[in-house]
Amino acid sequence: MNTQITQRLAAFRALLKERGVAAAIIPQADPHQGEYLAPHWQVRRWLSGFTGSAGDLVVTADKAALWTDSRYFLQAAEQLEGTGIELMKDGLADTPSIADFLCENLHAGEKAGLDGMLFTSAQVDSLKKALGAKGIDLITDLDIIDSIWLDRPALPDGKIFVHETKYAGKTASDKVTEILADAASKGADAVFECMLDNIAWTLNIRCNDVNHTPVATAFLYLSQGEKVLFIDPAKLTDETVAYLASQGITAKPYGDVKAFLGSLPADIHVLVDGAHTAMELLGILGQRAVEGGISAAARFKSVKNDTQLAGVRAAMIRDGVAMVRSIMEIERRMADGTPTGELDISEILRRHRAAGELFFDESFGTIAGYGPHGAIVHYEATEASSSTLRPEGLLLIDSGAQYLDGTTDITRTIALGTPTESEKTDFTLVMKGHIALAQAIFPAGTRGAQLDALARQFLWKHGLSYLHGTGHGVGHFLSVHEGPHSIRLNYVDAPLLPGSITSNEPGLYRENVHGIRCENLVLCRPEITTDFGEFLGFETLTLCPFDRSLFDLSIMTDEEIAWVDTYHATVAERLMPALATEEERTWLAAATKPLKA
Amino acid sequence: MNTQITQRLAAFRALLKERGVAAAIIPQADPHQGEYLAPHWQVRRWLSGFTGSAGDLVVTADKAALWTDSRYFLQAAEQLEGTGIELMKDGLADTPSIADFLCENLHAGEKAGLDGMLFTSAQVDSLKKALGAKGIDLITDLDIIDSIWLDRPALPDGKIFVHETKYAGKTASDKVTEILADAASKGADAVFECMLDNIAWTLNIRCNDVNHTPVATAFLYLSQGEKVLFIDPAKLTDETVAYLASQGITAKPYGDVKAFLGSLPADIHVLVDGAHTAMELLGILGQRAVEGGISAAARFKSVKNDTQLAGVRAAMIRDGVAMVRSIMEIERRMADGTPTGELDISEILRRHRAAGELFFDESFGTIAGYGPHGAIVHYEATEASSSTLRPEGLLLIDSGAQYLDGTTDITRTIALGTPTESEKTDFTLVMKGHIALAQAIFPAGTRGAQLDALARQFLWKHGLSYLHGTGHGVGHFLSVHEGPHSIRLNYVDAPLLPGSITSNEPGLYRENVHGIRCENLVLCRPEITTDFGEFLGFETLTLCPFDRSLFDLSIMTDEEIAWVDTYHATVAERLMPALATEEERTWLAAATKPLKA
Repeated sequence: MNTQITQRLAAFRALLKERGVAAAIIPQADPHQGEYLAPHWQVRRWLSGFTGSAGDLVVTADKAALWTDSRYFLQAAEQLEGTGIELMKDGLADTPSIADFLCENLHAGEKAGLDGMLFTSAQVDSLKKALGAKGIDLITDLDIIDSIWLDRPALPDGKIFVHETKYAGKTASDKVTEILADAASKGADAVFECMLDNIAWTLNIRCNDVNHTPVATAFLYLSQGEKVLFIDPAKLTDETVAYLASQGITAKPYGDVKAFLGSLPADIHVLVDGAHTAMELLGILGQRAVEGGISAAARFKSVKNDTQLAGVRAAMIRDGVAMVRSIMEIERRMADGTPTGELDISEILRRHRAAGELFFDESFGTIAGYGPHGAIVHYEATEASSSTLRPEGLLLIDSGAQYLDGTTDITRTIALGTPTESEKTDFTLVMKGHIALAQAIFPAGTRGAQLDALARQFLWKHGLSYLHGTGHGVGHFLSVHEGPHSIRLNYVDAPLLPGSITSNEPGLYRENVHGIRCENLVLCRPEITTDFGEFLGFETLTLCPFDRSLFDLSIMTDEEIAWVDTYHATVAERLMPALATEEERTWLAAATKPLKA
Repeated sequence: MNTQITQRLAAFRALLKERGVAAAIIPQADPHQGEYLAPHWQVRRWLSGFTGSAGDLVVTADKAALWTDSRYFLQAAEQLEGTGIELMKDGLADTPSIADFLCENLHAGEKAGLDGMLFTSAQVDSLKKALGAKGIDLITDLDIIDSIWLDRPALPDGKIFVHETKYAGKTASDKVTEILADAASKGADAVFECMLDNIAWTLNIRCNDVNHTPVATAFLYLSQGEKVLFIDPAKLTDETVAYLASQGITAKPYGDVKAFLGSLPADIHVLVDGAHTAMELLGILGQRAVEGGISAAARFKSVKNDTQLAGVRAAMIRDGVAMVRSIMEIERRMADGTPTGELDISEILRRHRAAGELFFDESFGTIAGYGPHGAIVHYEATEASSSTLRPEGLLLIDSGAQYLDGTTDITRTIALGTPTESEKTDFTLVMKGHIALAQAIFPAGTRGAQLDALARQFLWKHGLSYLHGTGHGVGHFLSVHEGPHSIRLNYVDAPLLPGSITSNEPGLYRENVHGIRCENLVLCRPEITTDFGEFLGFETLTLCPFDRSLFDLSIMTDEEIAWVDTYHATVAERLMPALATEEERTWLAAATKPLKA
């Protein structure tokens, strides 16, 4: 039994009882609708013991259940053991929704509760509707965790810093002007933005409030007359206050946002992205809120300018060099028998990356999964779990960095010994999908969901699949997962725009055997214009060889082989001048030889 | 100038003025949300002169505009000439929506109007919201056409007949039981169905109210206590009344539906598919209506039972024989110089199909487009337009039949002479997409939008595309376009289910040059089950050779060539025994030879 968690749950249940609430929903969420949370908002993690980046907890008087997605099924099962919390596997046909679960476990007249700062209006409305049909009430002001989480981390107080124009390519004041022009075209006088990466992008500011994502905890309100950043004064210096002022921005305390929104004139039209605005804040805005869909900052941010792209290309060379050195070091350790665990892999990657210029942080915790651990999609090795590598089997390494001039994210799957035929077949089927997507040409306006099958088709032919998306947007020295576009089975109504960066990362995970993922970042770019319109395609940005020993040429077309060879030639051309030693250059030359050589 | 149309518009405008309405929206729609309309509801056609099957008309005091999709751009441009009606090309980025148009052309305080029996609530709500933002009112009881359309066709009075269980495979009373069980599982007491094909399927009745689609004009209400078909009594006979009674169904006059719905108990829960229920009827149901999404009849109907599938397979042989004879006749006429126009092609196809067993009707008006006419996607030849065929260029023939045991829909593109290289390239790029889709394997639950790119990828690589969908569902002796599933760029939340039939019809249309479309019907079926779940695939049902002379083998993979050869071998095997003469058998043997033979 996990007594720490069961004690926390008991204390929480006592609080619920006191409040007359029969069930509480504790989401993985903050008031900014971000994917990654500052420690202050890791309530679900604290209460459940589950550390994954996605998952919502429901606690009733006698039950508790946690919903998470396929990336975390294995990890959650392990971490929830002994807590009494049931694992609910999101995305499987027979998994009840949270609303279903509450309807089943609560009686008419009982109340469920949540914190309206952590949910969007759409989420609350849909819950209210489902629960209401069963006579269950939903209260939205349940913010009670402070009284039992006694050592709850404070809001982050790190200082913000300016992301210089030489990296960002456009000044904050220019971006604000464009955002307000967009609002005006929609009949709005102002814009209210909650998302931390959108705010960081708009104002060219960065911070370290969230692990691996250089954002600051803040809200942003923009109108012609008033441009306010709501932020903890402790996070500011004279220099950053002056910088903000130079861009026309005034800072107010973070906690003032509710009173500020409540005091806005009744006839003002404030554009919001309702899907990314806390229900409570939207409620305060009331009739003043104009639903504008995906916010202008999110849309504009996804299209990188030439300065940003030059930065990303430069960062890719440094990242590729670090990858080459890391793989070489792993190979050396395998060859000379140095004991090496999964945690060592993370250290090796971090060390080589940190030695490069403009390195700020990793862009997420390295996933180094050896053998069966590779099949745990978002595996993070711990002291307890860390496997020792042997010269056989597959090692999956998913890692990336935050450089001042760009964000990287790369996955390579490496054979530590001589690969088996089935390892080669699995790897090659994944690569065929990777190549099909990398080479795709498609009409302007195409959504990622329309391309996703290109990356899956070869796996599907063999009754294989992967449950995660094929591609996510990537920020520029910002979140490694960035919207609005993506390439996945779920339809998202955001076209792939020229200038946007997306990952291309099909995979294959055989439980208890191995995991394979092949990930590069790709840039969407114009490809050809004909009588039939404008067609777009992708330029692969990431620079690092794929493991030549894992390709099964017998199931590849000539075109696919040519793609790999051309890609490897580009990798060699760009990385070679950045390598330091003859040994490194020799290694890269061998690693990028034509597949049939 | 087209004085007939301008006079009708003038009379209509006078009526609008009388009513104090500044603009009217006249949709291509009936109270049953069907795609094909009985003549009585062809108001938009009568008022605009445009005969296409899709298109909405807006008339203001001094302007008129018609919105239609890419299939009809050329036809509409031609038919609207001299009417003063502006063509609005739906789907192009710079085409305003109807709401945009009204907002631009009406002033605040003015009223726009429509007939609430011809729109869904969602359509009305979205219009109301857009117009409301500009201060324009929308009235929904504008049903005025009778007073100027003096020879308006009456409601159809053809007799219904029973579609026997030996074809349908399941009795009406069994279907009703299943539909009510589905409703009960959603907490509903009753079901209200508006869609004519769903009603025909549920009750195993057919009629000829709509050209080429064997449905009867009716509404259906089902509850445990009361099962009512609202239908014109003139359409019934003693025999069909007795049949309906035997299935537990009572008939009431069509016009009684509003009063009936209005008199239902206030606390009854009536399941409706709001997207396919007239706004006015939904308004009458009010709080009694429970939104259930796509109706059970639509979902159940899309999955064909074994009896239906045996029927379809048998019908495909008859249809294939008719196609073979038609193509042979066309070739003969080309060879001996018999003058042949596009209209003759329609006659030839109809004659050969009608000679087969169980033939009831064509399933739509044959599209026979020669040369440039092939590029008009839904071209229907008229006496005025009909081209004379010459022994060169491409002939596109899209046709199908309603047999008592199944509905067919097939498109073949035929070279009338020796094809040029560019004709072969175009044809082969289309076929590569057709083959990729025909061979696709995909997880259960996949939506058509996720597969659409497989059929387009080869065209896209060359900057080519087609603007129509790749596949539509097909009914069983019912509508040739049937929901809920489809294979198209637009996301439709209906999975491809085993047992459903869909067309596979990529195309390519070069304006003023030629049109190419390659269409077979395919059956979705289970393919393989693995640790990764159940995977589905397609069985091609249509039996007719593709024109061997049009394949460019140099751009096909061995796998693609093998698919064509295997398909042709199946065609030969199934059709050969059904052919009547040695000449026919010789022709088919040659037409189905391996591509490299």
